[in-house]
Amino acid sequence: MGPDPAVAAIRVAIRRALEDLPEGALVLAACSGGADSLALAGALAFEAPRSGRTAGGVTVDHGLQAGSDKRADAVVRVMADLGLDPSGSIAVTVDGTGGPENAARQARYQALDEVAERLGAAAVMLGHTQDDQAETVLLGLARGSGARSLAGMPTSFRRGSGVLYLRPLLEIDRATTRRACEAMGLDPWDDPHNVDPAYTRVRVRHEVMPVLEKSLGPGVAAALARTARMLRDDADYLDEVAARSFADLEDPHDGYAVAIRLEDLEKLPRAIRTRVLRMAAVKAGSPAGTLAAVHVDAVDRLVTAWRGQRHVDLPGGLRAFRRYGKLLFGRTGEV
Amino acid sequence: MGPDPAVAAIRVAIRRALEDLPEGALVLAACSGGADSLALAGALAFEAPRSGRTAGGVTVDHGLQAGSDKRADAVVRVMADLGLDPSGSIAVTVDGTGGPENAARQARYQALDEVAERLGAAAVMLGHTQDDQAETVLLGLARGSGARSLAGMPTSFRRGSGVLYLRPLLEIDRATTRRACEAMGLDPWDDPHNVDPAYTRVRVRHEVMPVLEKSLGPGVAAALARTARMLRDDADYLDEVAARSFADLEDPHDGYAVAIRLEDLEKLPRAIRTRVLRMAAVKAGSPAGTLAAVHVDAVDRLVTAWRGQRHVDLPGGLRAFRRYGKLLFGRTGEV
Repeated sequence: MGPDPAVAAIRVAIRRALEDLPEGALVLAACSGGADSLALAGALAFEAPRSGRTAGGVTVDHGLQAGSDKRADAVVRVMADLGLDPSGSIAVTVDGTGGPENAARQARYQALDEVAERLGAAAVMLGHTQDDQAETVLLGLARGSGARSLAGMPTSFRRGSGVLYLRPLLEIDRATTRRACEAMGLDPWDDPHNVDPAYTRVRVRHEVMPVLEKSLGPGVAAALARTARMLRDDADYLDEVAARSFADLEDPHDGYAVAIRLEDLEKLPRAIRTRVLRMAAVKAGSPAGTLAAVHVDAVDRLVTAWRGQRHVDLPGGLRAFRRYGKLLFGRTGEV
Repeated sequence: MGPDPAVAAIRVAIRRALEDLPEGALVLAACSGGADSLALAGALAFEAPRSGRTAGGVTVDHGLQAGSDKRADAVVRVMADLGLDPSGSIAVTVDGTGGPENAARQARYQALDEVAERLGAAAVMLGHTQDDQAETVLLGLARGSGARSLAGMPTSFRRGSGVLYLRPLLEIDRATTRRACEAMGLDPWDDPHNVDPAYTRVRVRHEVMPVLEKSLGPGVAAALARTARMLRDDADYLDEVAARSFADLEDPHDGYAVAIRLEDLEKLPRAIRTRVLRMAAVKAGSPAGTLAAVHVDAVDRLVTAWRGQRHVDLPGGLRAFRRYGKLLFGRTGEV
């Protein structure tokens, strides 16, 4: 008799992710103790030795709830029992900027980076599922800033630190991780933050997704995850084409941070032109995080629908305007 | 004292759309009697003569509800009172395929085509708003088939008939059309179909959108509409690049509907390759409407992740497989 189908599905996903890593490599499961990352830890402990890799586990104690240190210890014991070796916890202080979710995320990744580097791990596996991906797409929809904001989370990425992160469960749904935990005799911890409606993601999970499934049909999460993957391919390609265009077309002009000939810009298809304009503004000093689609659109109208507009003000004390047959970007006080 | 701000917003949108049409042209408002198209009709009647164009109106009697002929007569009287000349109604028989909404749409456009051709109209204006666009994006999300399915409705399009259709209100919200009707003293008709939860679109409008706005914030409809516009630019460009690639790479092989060298396909970025594969399958005879992302993905795995798969079956009795260093498409019975 084979394993439970939920367990089998997760093991297959982990096995495929392991294939891309060098033999003998150490792989860490990042495990909060929740159902998703616990199922990941269980499947990794099973698959790694069978594929000639070593598996360890790490849990991050964010110190945001009373008793979080004891919880971390309990997760370490579970990981050790599963056979993940080394297994350990790391405590962080959450005091970054950009909202509590973002601060916690930053602290968590920094801690995972440190552990991975110290242990020489080839990769850290994260337990994000198809449902997390669907939620991420919906959160991106609300921003309304195009393909990149709908592209969700990548299957793999490298941090500035050089540490490789993998998300092998992006095609597995949350119900499957929960069933797999049950079948493996693992008792997941339900983080109270996951039901606190103060978090937008929690509202998306518990209010938006059920209504979407009721109105549009039960395949919505899978459709959103598929959309994310396709739009990620699109965004990667379009960004690459735009970066090449920008490098070709940039035409330095004394005293201005960035300059491009209008004639060259007008010829570009809109999908590429708006990306080039965004790259130009960011290179000139506008912060990527606050530069929005409305700003880029206004600059685009300077290029393609100019009716005497004097300039467009951009975040970061920057200004775009037409002069000498070029689109110029300069600091507000200086131009 | 100027006009009501809602009326002014709609008039500006109509004025901009009129600017792109030849002077002296006849423009028709397609008007159901609902708030959106009634506001459109009112604003067109006001703006057209001031911009040197002529405005007429047409309403389609779908014959789906008792008394629909009387309703159509009433809409014609309102349009005539507004000064739309000619104004008239056209009765259609809804018996097409693909569900009742699709059948009604097909019959409606065919009737509008006929009227526009008979009167020599330069364009037909449709009253779709930003809210309609947001709903269309959400309906596309559920299909999960990438940028094109999220690209919503275009601002302008030409039908096979050659008739030009414009949607000048895609950046105006439904609340504004309703306020504008009130300010213009127009009494909109509320189609009972618009509250019938048997229609997916109605459920999206009355169940999904309110929850999205509550969870993500009030700007969701605008964000969805903006997303649609950006993804439409992306999809247009990517389709164009892919069509060029396909034309360059197609390498006819005796006895097969379509053939492409695997070596050429492997080099393409995924965003382009998956589009080329879709075009190839459609050219070989797979119906575009039933060829889904999962089919294209399976063909892509034949190219990039081949592990001995024999072939991929596609809708329309078609089969894709590797042979002679090529990816070949042929009819199932013949290969």
